[in-house]
Amino acid sequence: MGSTMIKVGIVGGTGYTGVELLGLLAMHPQAALQVITSRADAGTPVSQMFPSLRGVVDLSFTHPDEAQLEKCDLVFFATPNGIAMQQVRALLDAGVKVIDLAADFRLQDIAEWEKWYSMSHVCPDLVAEAVYGLPEVNRAHIKTARLVANPGCYPTAVQLGFIPLLEAGMIESDNLIADAKSGVSGAGRKAEVSFLFSEAADNFKAYGVAGHRHLPEIKQGLARAQGKPVGLTFVPHLTPMIRGIHATLYGRLARDANLADLQALFERRYASEPFVDVMPAGSHPETRSVRGANKCRIAVHRPQGGDVVVVLSVIDNLVKGAAGQAVQNMNIMFGLPEDTALNSVPLLP
Amino acid sequence: MGSTMIKVGIVGGTGYTGVELLGLLAMHPQAALQVITSRADAGTPVSQMFPSLRGVVDLSFTHPDEAQLEKCDLVFFATPNGIAMQQVRALLDAGVKVIDLAADFRLQDIAEWEKWYSMSHVCPDLVAEAVYGLPEVNRAHIKTARLVANPGCYPTAVQLGFIPLLEAGMIESDNLIADAKSGVSGAGRKAEVSFLFSEAADNFKAYGVAGHRHLPEIKQGLARAQGKPVGLTFVPHLTPMIRGIHATLYGRLARDANLADLQALFERRYASEPFVDVMPAGSHPETRSVRGANKCRIAVHRPQGGDVVVVLSVIDNLVKGAAGQAVQNMNIMFGLPEDTALNSVPLLP
Amino acid sequence: MGSTMIKVGIVGGTGYTGVELLGLLAMHPQAALQVITSRADAGTPVSQMFPSLRGVVDLSFTHPDEAQLEKCDLVFFATPNGIAMQQVRALLDAGVKVIDLAADFRLQDIAEWEKWYSMSHVCPDLVAEAVYGLPEVNRAHIKTARLVANPGCYPTAVQLGFIPLLEAGMIESDNLIADAKSGVSGAGRKAEVSFLFSEAADNFKAYGVAGHRHLPEIKQGLARAQGKPVGLTFVPHLTPMIRGIHATLYGRLARDANLADLQALFERRYASEPFVDVMPAGSHPETRSVRGANKCRIAVHRPQGGDVVVVLSVIDNLVKGAAGQAVQNMNIMFGLPEDTALNSVPLLP
Amino acid sequence: MGSTMIKVGIVGGTGYTGVELLGLLAMHPQAALQVITSRADAGTPVSQMFPSLRGVVDLSFTHPDEAQLEKCDLVFFATPNGIAMQQVRALLDAGVKVIDLAADFRLQDIAEWEKWYSMSHVCPDLVAEAVYGLPEVNRAHIKTARLVANPGCYPTAVQLGFIPLLEAGMIESDNLIADAKSGVSGAGRKAEVSFLFSEAADNFKAYGVAGHRHLPEIKQGLARAQGKPVGLTFVPHLTPMIRGIHATLYGRLARDANLADLQALFERRYASEPFVDVMPAGSHPETRSVRGANKCRIAVHRPQGGDVVVVLSVIDNLVKGAAGQAVQNMNIMFGLPEDTALNSVPLLP
Repeated sequence: MGSTMIKVGIVGGTGYTGVELLGLLAMHPQAALQVITSRADAGTPVSQMFPSLRGVVDLSFTHPDEAQLEKCDLVFFATPNGIAMQQVRALLDAGVKVIDLAADFRLQDIAEWEKWYSMSHVCPDLVAEAVYGLPEVNRAHIKTARLVANPGCYPTAVQLGFIPLLEAGMIESDNLIADAKSGVSGAGRKAEVSFLFSEAADNFKAYGVAGHRHLPEIKQGLARAQGKPVGLTFVPHLTPMIRGIHATLYGRLARDANLADLQALFERRYASEPFVDVMPAGSHPETRSVRGANKCRIAVHRPQGGDVVVVLSVIDNLVKGAAGQAVQNMNIMFGLPEDTALNSVPLLP
Repeated sequence: MGSTMIKVGIVGGTGYTGVELLGLLAMHPQAALQVITSRADAGTPVSQMFPSLRGVVDLSFTHPDEAQLEKCDLVFFATPNGIAMQQVRALLDAGVKVIDLAADFRLQDIAEWEKWYSMSHVCPDLVAEAVYGLPEVNRAHIKTARLVANPGCYPTAVQLGFIPLLEAGMIESDNLIADAKSGVSGAGRKAEVSFLFSEAADNFKAYGVAGHRHLPEIKQGLARAQGKPVGLTFVPHLTPMIRGIHATLYGRLARDANLADLQALFERRYASEPFVDVMPAGSHPETRSVRGANKCRIAVHRPQGGDVVVVLSVIDNLVKGAAGQAVQNMNIMFGLPEDTALNSVPLLP
Repeated sequence: MGSTMIKVGIVGGTGYTGVELLGLLAMHPQAALQVITSRADAGTPVSQMFPSLRGVVDLSFTHPDEAQLEKCDLVFFATPNGIAMQQVRALLDAGVKVIDLAADFRLQDIAEWEKWYSMSHVCPDLVAEAVYGLPEVNRAHIKTARLVANPGCYPTAVQLGFIPLLEAGMIESDNLIADAKSGVSGAGRKAEVSFLFSEAADNFKAYGVAGHRHLPEIKQGLARAQGKPVGLTFVPHLTPMIRGIHATLYGRLARDANLADLQALFERRYASEPFVDVMPAGSHPETRSVRGANKCRIAVHRPQGGDVVVVLSVIDNLVKGAAGQAVQNMNIMFGLPEDTALNSVPLLP
Repeated sequence: MGSTMIKVGIVGGTGYTGVELLGLLAMHPQAALQVITSRADAGTPVSQMFPSLRGVVDLSFTHPDEAQLEKCDLVFFATPNGIAMQQVRALLDAGVKVIDLAADFRLQDIAEWEKWYSMSHVCPDLVAEAVYGLPEVNRAHIKTARLVANPGCYPTAVQLGFIPLLEAGMIESDNLIADAKSGVSGAGRKAEVSFLFSEAADNFKAYGVAGHRHLPEIKQGLARAQGKPVGLTFVPHLTPMIRGIHATLYGRLARDANLADLQALFERRYASEPFVDVMPAGSHPETRSVRGANKCRIAVHRPQGGDVVVVLSVIDNLVKGAAGQAVQNMNIMFGLPEDTALNSVPLLP
């Protein structure tokens, strides 16, 4: 382990985001995974819980009390919401950088956060400092950040699809619609009847139509792009696949533009983005085309030559929608090539 | 076989619509299946092609030339588009009633039909006579029809969801959005790479965003409800399940109405419909709740109390979206109780 | 409700066996469902838990203390193991017949039962009285039984496949192999991580190789057929589908017999069985060919003309492997036509 | 591209084995992919057919007549059976090494090959020269081979599971049973009704029980391990997942051995194998634990302490069962570290 290695810790990590992060870090030539904590599974070898990691990760889970996270250069929180905010200040004070994969630092509006997450926030000042870790928007700030709020999965897919249009003032921003479909892994590795195979397979449903926690996060990001608040209807759905998000986005043209103009707009916006692939106009990106990869593929449509723009945006919710984006942020924060450990080929079929 | 039995023939029937129709008719106490034709599989026992029908259907496929369909009381066409229109006139002339499960008689605008289906129509006069077989809209006309155009699967789900709102002038009709998701059986039993298990499983994608044949059919139906043409964006998606359509419908309120008003509107509209189930406001109907059943379940939402109405509408594409609706039409045409043979319990899980 | 109606109660019924039983009984012309109990969900309408039963079942769950089960003619237990044995004596004493869908009365060897189920049995005398409810073996006894032990799902598929060979002394009985594969609904509607969609989809594994509770049940049944104890290796597997069991059975010929002889043996054995379908020799029955139906399809093979017989046996684990078989037993116990309410067509695709 | 790069060509490559090989070679630091041929798709960019390879593979398919394969150092055949044998001699004569992923060179018994593959073999002498590319058995010969016959998917999983037992004479070899289950990608990317999503999903079936082409290949390999012909019953099944093979293997102990002995035997046999993972005795390896990885995981059982040994062996059919093993063979043939480009982490969930 050379002197250039980044000492990394993970808090939590028995969920799907955790196992994905473990796999990515194991292949990362500059990351030295020091510790991964779990209260419930302390002492259990990681590879016993996840046999896919046999021969890949040799660590056992460590009890949080013995983790010595302050000796790390970087700590990832792959925990339920409300955990990271309890521990981040001490780590930052010890000079440790932090990337939170949960939602504790995503919303700048504390009251809004407290409403959606039903708890009091314990460190609003750190929210103000935290950088929202969507590199395609915030790369410069991420570079110097101590604390990065890794975006949610839906918000990543939806923002990347809408941002070029909003930044260019191309669509009316008072009536945006995001109809999004997620694989079941987005619900995490929790024992709940609704997510049993026999409930979720061969079945399709919407959920949270009245309101989903990712709604304010998306609206915050779109407002930033638009320069003012937007009107958004966001309907998430559960689709019987493991990984993947497909966002189908609808907006009404605010001014004249043909499909070629729209296509050029997207291509320019993402010309130098390594992890956003603007497909030819009229394409239909498939979620499997990004399965296991840190990639967002986008295609723009203007059906029937009308005034509605349809954008299709796909990601792997566990990679570009979670762990991969977190590693991308780490690479930026530590001055590494942004694609380090992030070039794996999507698994197809 | 009593004197009250309806002598039924099926043209085509080696596809998914066909096997569903066979199963329904086999359980129908008033239907006597006389003949089922197939050019390619003439002589093959039906139950050899579909072992699920062993002990249920004893017929073999008959070559079209030997089918003697004119001896039937009713003939179903479960054929590709463009077949029924070749044969219907002779059958009608022989006093046989016809239900076409394909698209030949669905669009009243012949030019529009010819554009979307890329063929010349051979009997426009019969299109004019044909009744669009959506019982919830056309029951009286179906009762006396000689020729019924059975609706498409997407059109059934989308129309049933929008119609109450449009008939009441409740939403703006110039910018309707129908984001629809279909199981793979909607693509039929055709050997195509795109619909292989290894292509379609664990994958989600949109298709036909530029234009899908069901778009003009839906627009025709919605215009009828609204009393004038509507603006509609229709995006179909393929979701990795076998059966089911989930339509997520978006419209903007044209006048003040709270969720209870909207709910009451739907309940009134479908109060006496045996096959439309208006769920409590705020519900999330699942496709599996109608799997194998001739049922459309609908729920209405008004997210965040805003001015967008979201309607969720689910059907089984092979039943209420095809064969079940065809049998429902048959029951109406022959004066039988409308639910004869259509009361099977949805298969869950 | 006529005087010939059978008053039926269900204890438990919030699981998959329960919902299947509810659907079957709702369609049963001689069954009047009086009560369904659930401690945890008392007061909840059945159709709220299972929206597929909206308009089909109007009951709410009743607290066990208020169930008045003794007023029923028949009570089904669709409970976890160990519940029925607590309550059966009182019901029998009150003149109520009982069908237990769990395992409490399946094993005649009490010590063996207590070993596998890790509890003391509270009514061994009733075990002695109980009739093992596999109609193809025990029809006469079921007819007069007060208490029927409904077979397990694996035991049904495996026994029906092996019994003709063993009864005829056709295969060596000291080294039978049953390699069985089950859909995930066999694990029930319990919130466990292993059965989450994201764990069980796109995955295949064996489980319980060291010993599974259905092993002694199968051995008991095969010993009865053979007339002496058998040697059996039983390996269950979990396969990513909702319903269905496929048992692949291997035995070595004990005497000369060609494939036609074997086929004739199976056809004779099941000639008058309404729910066992012996397919042509060399067939490959699919689980979906019995999806939703009370049917076992069987095919016999003799690969390469060698001395190994391979039998393929498929059932729907929730129907012929549970609720359907229970209704079949009810029909026999009450002198009804055995197929009453059991003729639904398998759902394919 | 440095002087140490291996110039690689692929013949065929529009199937699943092809796309997997493309992905692996794209990540291989010593491989320079020169050409990939396809008669039907000449001129089409690879990434148009497989959008997952956008940004990964820049080549277009080349017509075979223009491929100049003789300029390569190594050519992979990812073609249907019977193609490679037509072209291999010319390539070998030109000094090009060849790895055939199809079956043309797998069986040493030409008559047997011709029986199972229904064609005449055009170069029996090259079959004699060809090395069967199972590194765990043939590493030394592969190192110096000009022509490697890459094993089939079932044969890889079954052989690796049985070989330690047979080499040690631990089980009776006259009555082996291999009950194997494959994901649907094993059937290739061919448009056939049987492999449509709506046919293969939520369904399980055996196939080819009378005889499957992999039977003679497996028997050849097991005979080599045993030192004499073996008796084997091989039953393949289709399971509704995309990737993965699970082989459940049964043998009868030929001499006394407890589970620890058996475990030690497996661990010794594979101690230095980088791609065979012997799990703790009594484990249940899951196919997803090797999804996307060049790994075989094995666990040994002795149920109930009886005389039957059960071995569970899982691979990804497209990786260790095809393309990954081919790259492993390439690494051996060219003196590279055997795991070059083969260390990707399995995709779980």
